[in-house]
Amino acid sequence: MGHEFDSQIEVEGKGEGVFSADLSAGWVVGGGVNGGYLLAVMGNALRASLPGKPDPLAVSAHYLSASVPGPATVAVDVRRDGGSVATAAADLRQGEATRITALATYGDLGRLGDDVRTTAEEPDMPPPDECVPNTMAPPEVRAIAPLMDRFDMRFHPDHVGWAVGRPSGNGVLSAWFRLADGRDPDPISLLMVVDALPPVTFELGMPGWAPTLELTAHVRARPAPGWLKVRHETRNMAGGMFEEDCEVWDSTGRLVAQSRQLARQPRG
Amino acid sequence: MGHEFDSQIEVEGKGEGVFSADLSAGWVVGGGVNGGYLLAVMGNALRASLPGKPDPLAVSAHYLSASVPGPATVAVDVRRDGGSVATAAADLRQGEATRITALATYGDLGRLGDDVRTTAEEPDMPPPDECVPNTMAPPEVRAIAPLMDRFDMRFHPDHVGWAVGRPSGNGVLSAWFRLADGRDPDPISLLMVVDALPPVTFELGMPGWAPTLELTAHVRARPAPGWLKVRHETRNMAGGMFEEDCEVWDSTGRLVAQSRQLARQPRG
Repeated sequence: MGHEFDSQIEVEGKGEGVFSADLSAGWVVGGGVNGGYLLAVMGNALRASLPGKPDPLAVSAHYLSASVPGPATVAVDVRRDGGSVATAAADLRQGEATRITALATYGDLGRLGDDVRTTAEEPDMPPPDECVPNTMAPPEVRAIAPLMDRFDMRFHPDHVGWAVGRPSGNGVLSAWFRLADGRDPDPISLLMVVDALPPVTFELGMPGWAPTLELTAHVRARPAPGWLKVRHETRNMAGGMFEEDCEVWDSTGRLVAQSRQLARQPRG
Repeated sequence: MGHEFDSQIEVEGKGEGVFSADLSAGWVVGGGVNGGYLLAVMGNALRASLPGKPDPLAVSAHYLSASVPGPATVAVDVRRDGGSVATAAADLRQGEATRITALATYGDLGRLGDDVRTTAEEPDMPPPDECVPNTMAPPEVRAIAPLMDRFDMRFHPDHVGWAVGRPSGNGVLSAWFRLADGRDPDPISLLMVVDALPPVTFELGMPGWAPTLELTAHVRARPAPGWLKVRHETRNMAGGMFEEDCEVWDSTGRLVAQSRQLARQPRG
């Protein structure tokens, strides 16, 4: 049985590094298609282009224009492949417009050492059943954010003030996360997970869309099956922009992905 | 009077987005040329390619092979230029070898709003005169790291255990920083500053070279003249790799740059 997510990120090789994709309307949020989902689509094309290096280690994406559901192409240009890692450039295009341009370094996470000296602390969260599910979102929110139906997301009770008009004022947002279709996480889906939560600016009283200028994700281990914990934080809101750091922890308590993005503050 | 640093990062336009550069032997460290310096050279070529957008906002670099002092070219390909930001790809090459491939989004930091809601805390450091200068480094270290002569760096006394064989075991390193030639910091030099300190792994008892796989820098404001405070931290050492976050604070106490890199742990 295939999972919805796998069909949504599917790419078909057309030769010479070009892949076709069909961007799913199920990942629309506001005026565009979710940037994390798009990165997973690109990540899939990159994986297909780099035999023996199945896993994204570092992916840096610069967002040029908003995507729309429907046909797209991913053009991959392998820049260096030798030793244990390979680096490639990838562009996501629709018609004449480049939506995202990215650089990616891939390797094999299964061949890394098993040393773990992580000092970052796993987020302390109540069990999923004691958190606030995304299915509680008001219908008007879900209408403009079909992507909410892709997730089973359970927000930390301390980080959902934004949903009831009482943002905490802290630049932190965290939630349990799994795909609604039951698909377990893998390094490609983590590229989506790092940009799946609402922007942390929601908790700062700015409920609008926060366009990403740049996002870099590091995938540090293959995630274990089951729930993920996702934590977003900003520490530098200034000049109309903010950085957003994301950590993703798997069900064994391992920090499996870290990302940082630079985004524009929501207007109004 | 020109400053040494400006001549070292100088690029000359050869047309069609290609620039020539002369990588300075003064920036050698161990077996290569310092990656931050190289990013400043690339940043200079990018600036020259993007009229009206003088400042790097986000630069993502993937390091493919070690550079050597001498001639190099930077090839810039403008991917999108419109509105308040522009994005370009840039490659640093020597002969047939690509050393670094990067994506950069530039804009005008002088035109951003003056709102500052930074919650990150400025590093608490003793005055420069009470810190440990890099000129105290043993001659054998300075012999393999000519770049040390480019800086006036004053390490936090709590973060120099590595220099005397007693690393703290904490993944934190901080120092005051200024260029030895007296040149004041600007957004281009900040691309160098984020990768100028020794790797934070020194304080974890791993004194070797830590090759960067990927580094992304966000420049958030034009720095004021004078000393900078630079702080490095790692929170996720695992699988033979580590992330290193860097913050750069200017003399007015503003967080002017943030970077994160993914690097290999030193061997042995």
